Amino acid sequence: MPTDHIVKSFDDDLKRLDNIIAEMGGLAEVQLANAIEGLLKRDSEKANRVIASDKQLDALEQEVDALAVQMLALRQPMANDLRVVITALRTASIIERIGDYAKNIAKRTVAISQAAPTGPTKTIGRMGKQVQSMIKNVLDAYITRDAAKAEDVRVSDTEVDDLHTSLFRELLTYMMEDPGNITACTHLLFIAKNIERMGDHATNIAENVLFLVTGSAPDEDRIKGDDSSFVVEADCDSKTKATS
Amino acid sequence: MPTDHIVKSFDDDLKRLDNIIAEMGGLAEVQLANAIEGLLKRDSEKANRVIASDKQLDALEQEVDALAVQMLALRQPMANDLRVVITALRTASIIERIGDYAKNIAKRTVAISQAAPTGPTKTIGRMGKQVQSMIKNVLDAYITRDAAKAEDVRVSDTEVDDLHTSLFRELLTYMMEDPGNITACTHLLFIAKNIERMGDHATNIAENVLFLVTGSAPDEDRIKGDDSSFVVEADCDSKTKATS
Repeated sequence: MPTDHIVKSFDDDLKRLDNIIAEMGGLAEVQLANAIEGLLKRDSEKANRVIASDKQLDALEQEVDALAVQMLALRQPMANDLRVVITALRTASIIERIGDYAKNIAKRTVAISQAAPTGPTKTIGRMGKQVQSMIKNVLDAYITRDAAKAEDVRVSDTEVDDLHTSLFRELLTYMMEDPGNITACTHLLFIAKNIERMGDHATNIAENVLFLVTGSAPDEDRIKGDDSSFVVEADCDSKTKATS
Repeated sequence: MPTDHIVKSFDDDLKRLDNIIAEMGGLAEVQLANAIEGLLKRDSEKANRVIASDKQLDALEQEVDALAVQMLALRQPMANDLRVVITALRTASIIERIGDYAKNIAKRTVAISQAAPTGPTKTIGRMGKQVQSMIKNVLDAYITRDAAKAEDVRVSDTEVDDLHTSLFRELLTYMMEDPGNITACTHLLFIAKNIERMGDHATNIAENVLFLVTGSAPDEDRIKGDDSSFVVEADCDSKTKATS
């Protein structure tokens, strides 16, 4: 609804939109970093703080939604400006989902806080670091409208997918070797999947940036490297191989 | 870009938007049904058809995107009409993601196609049926702008969450009892999670319908019933309990 006191220009609104999204990106990055640190140190207190902080991302997304809808209604932007507003809406929604994954990692960290840290946890740490830098870089690419940087993020996701697929096998092996590992490893499987999905979401933002800058989505789907859904058996020397 | 031959009314465009979304909803429902049937019958051929059909949903989402952006640019809708277009954009994106989950179930079905069907598979079948009817009902609610029906869908998601949490424990138990079950059960864990997420997405559509009809999002977050992220150990009599 138009109100009299709105006198700012469309560009001011766009800038505000970008600022909120930059803030969301920074927050999502910190949430992931803290979730991973909480996991590596089995620090339930830190994990609980991550769970509590997720509300901030939700609130910021709602701010983007409200501002974007207001801009569409009041400014009735055309062509490129319209594209910017739609992309902002999408990007905020993706960052909010990245935050949800960080929150889920934190929840699972609380569940396994009594289990001893195992080898795969460190690989998860490495995946986390990689995705954290993807989130940082793709938000930089978004704010500066940098197509080359967005493309770099898009391409780098295959490394995360590869890490995830090998981690999936590694965790299955751990579970087979000692059924006592099963509950903790199952949570680690989902944590690894969460990080892999965060990488996918960073890739989605990259594709939105490419659309924003070049006016068209990338021609080809990124070569999908996450083959964990196809894993038929654990790649291990364990005598207790899967019967499948 | 305006072209001369566009003479249809805004209402015609809205109707077309709704038609594509109804088509998407029907397709997502069928994809889920086929994915579950493929899983229950260990039918890789059916599963592969589900994987191949996902492209249709992607194409329909792009159609919604293009039409919605065109409507925003050409018609510059205000207030309620604007809300309808934004909701259509969001709904199409959610249905596309529901389709992605069906596709992932199919991929995992192929991976475990040689494993014997086990008890939990049947529970997954029940979850699938429930989510299938949620998808059907929420799309009906969307097309007929029926807030009461949307609210029913929102509330019914807690049953799916409860099924999922108990299934999670059940699958952990199977894995502990026989490490030979681990690979297949791991895929079943992710399949169950996929269905649970589809229920969440149906709930998200329901919330969008409520927003569309009432003008405001539901006051309270739905009581989140999926506690599987918090499961500390399998609820079983197995001697090989988790050490966590």
